[in-house]
Amino acid sequence: MRVTEYYNGLIKNNRAILGKAITLIESSLKSDINKKDLLISKCLPHSGKSIRIGISGTPGVGKSTFINKLGELLIQSNQKIAILAIDPSSSISKGSILGDKTRMPKLSNHKNVFIRPSPSKESLGGICESTKDSIVLCETAGYNIIIVETVGVGQSEILVDSITDIFIFLTLVDNGDEIQFIKKGVLELSDIIIINKCDQNIQKAKYTKLILEQNIKLSTHKKQTVSICSALKNTNIENIWSEISNLYKEKNKSGHIEAKRKQQNVFWLNHLINTEIQRKMKTSQTIQTLMHKLKKNQSGNTKQIIKQTINKLLK
Amino acid sequence: MRVTEYYNGLIKNNRAILGKAITLIESSLKSDINKKDLLISKCLPHSGKSIRIGISGTPGVGKSTFINKLGELLIQSNQKIAILAIDPSSSISKGSILGDKTRMPKLSNHKNVFIRPSPSKESLGGICESTKDSIVLCETAGYNIIIVETVGVGQSEILVDSITDIFIFLTLVDNGDEIQFIKKGVLELSDIIIINKCDQNIQKAKYTKLILEQNIKLSTHKKQTVSICSALKNTNIENIWSEISNLYKEKNKSGHIEAKRKQQNVFWLNHLINTEIQRKMKTSQTIQTLMHKLKKNQSGNTKQIIKQTINKLLK
Repeated sequence: MRVTEYYNGLIKNNRAILGKAITLIESSLKSDINKKDLLISKCLPHSGKSIRIGISGTPGVGKSTFINKLGELLIQSNQKIAILAIDPSSSISKGSILGDKTRMPKLSNHKNVFIRPSPSKESLGGICESTKDSIVLCETAGYNIIIVETVGVGQSEILVDSITDIFIFLTLVDNGDEIQFIKKGVLELSDIIIINKCDQNIQKAKYTKLILEQNIKLSTHKKQTVSICSALKNTNIENIWSEISNLYKEKNKSGHIEAKRKQQNVFWLNHLINTEIQRKMKTSQTIQTLMHKLKKNQSGNTKQIIKQTINKLLK
Repeated sequence: MRVTEYYNGLIKNNRAILGKAITLIESSLKSDINKKDLLISKCLPHSGKSIRIGISGTPGVGKSTFINKLGELLIQSNQKIAILAIDPSSSISKGSILGDKTRMPKLSNHKNVFIRPSPSKESLGGICESTKDSIVLCETAGYNIIIVETVGVGQSEILVDSITDIFIFLTLVDNGDEIQFIKKGVLELSDIIIINKCDQNIQKAKYTKLILEQNIKLSTHKKQTVSICSALKNTNIENIWSEISNLYKEKNKSGHIEAKRKQQNVFWLNHLINTEIQRKMKTSQTIQTLMHKLKKNQSGNTKQIIKQTINKLLK
């Protein structure tokens, strides 16, 4: 397929072509590089108009169920939703993605919904990089709500936050360790924290909400909210959506969205430059000689030897 | 304190000095660099004689309880145990470490046990790098079992596996998503997978064990075992220790431990070189000019421009 065919398909919101275009973006074939670049260049002017939402949480927290219920709500008001799932794991199994599709039967067959897993072969940075481009393609195809789902703690959240406007963290009612954990790192990232499965113990859910809100007051400067819901029982999903869309409107009006997206571009430029340098270094003769020398003589001043060599190499 | 004072304290197994020596290793002060390097150089000949065990699992899986019970078993046979906890999160709270100390009252007061949290300020790579050196210090101080504990999925496990001999992954009886998740990535890393909290449902635990064993057969080449236990009820901890120590003996005899440690050194050399290059790049004029140019003109061929510039820069 030629780039114009991809492009025309996207403009016409052809879902099959959107799927193929993302496959092209994710391709690691050298022969695809020029095509990829041209396609993204053509699509960039059409991009940027969606609400980009990142959703994360440890396994078992109910992300798929939540996204499913949120999606079912949104299609009622004719929104066009793209769900991109990032899988920060290795390539043994096809991952939970097929599972997600079967867990979201209503959504995956709906004309206004596009669901897409990311390949799990690459590094997490690599996956996020192509997801960043996939968002551009989805926006070109007219999707106005993009949901990026990720599993995991730490690294993956930071990367997902670097490609989305609003970051939502799902947690559980009854998980002391989890609460302790999200206090740190992920809490600062989150715009909205959702305590899911509140049907299991509503009192405890309210208590957890209180604790989290106190933590937020103490530890972060940015505006953050805590909500409770039961995705399974479909409670409070509508309120949470109001919260998301109000927050987006507010952030958009105040210029926060634009500023964040600019920062994200800088982040990704840095990431691309670092990746390229690392790739290049693997073939560098100076580095190979250094490695050979250090492998033989392990000592405490390894770092200083490395520092001196790199200093000479990169003037 | 001078380096010889640190060194003499370590040789005499002075726990207070071991604590201070690790603080030195973790220091980011420029003035400490030479001291750090010299201390590690002096300690390296005394290192390498312990069993280095990495233990991981998502929050709530019972890592602290398990390590506590394992430690209580080991001190009965006069083993000297160092527990190093890596915390892959930000610096808002002091983390679960103080919690761990209070959750391990018997251990933390025992003369043959040393418990140490890692700082959470640095990057995960940085934490692991200093933990790698902390292991050398603990071994010099005579600890023959080193346990490195980490939370999280993906990245942190890979790093912990790069500083330990045997990697143990804890999971739960009743966590479909978790099982699905550990199928990928972490499964290949693990030498021993432990299904904890089996007291909650022994039938399900046995079933989960069966599933995991089938997965292992299909997906990996290395020898791996699956055990069930309840750390809380102290069941099966002794058997698991036999398993760990037998596996270590076997791997040691076959040369696997030595080979793995050599590989780990190469991994860390690469890591150090990459870190240094990235640091250096931040001050490079060429890179700054490139960034400035790309920030202004976002387009699809950003990657190719970066590639060409780096190619010219690093001949």
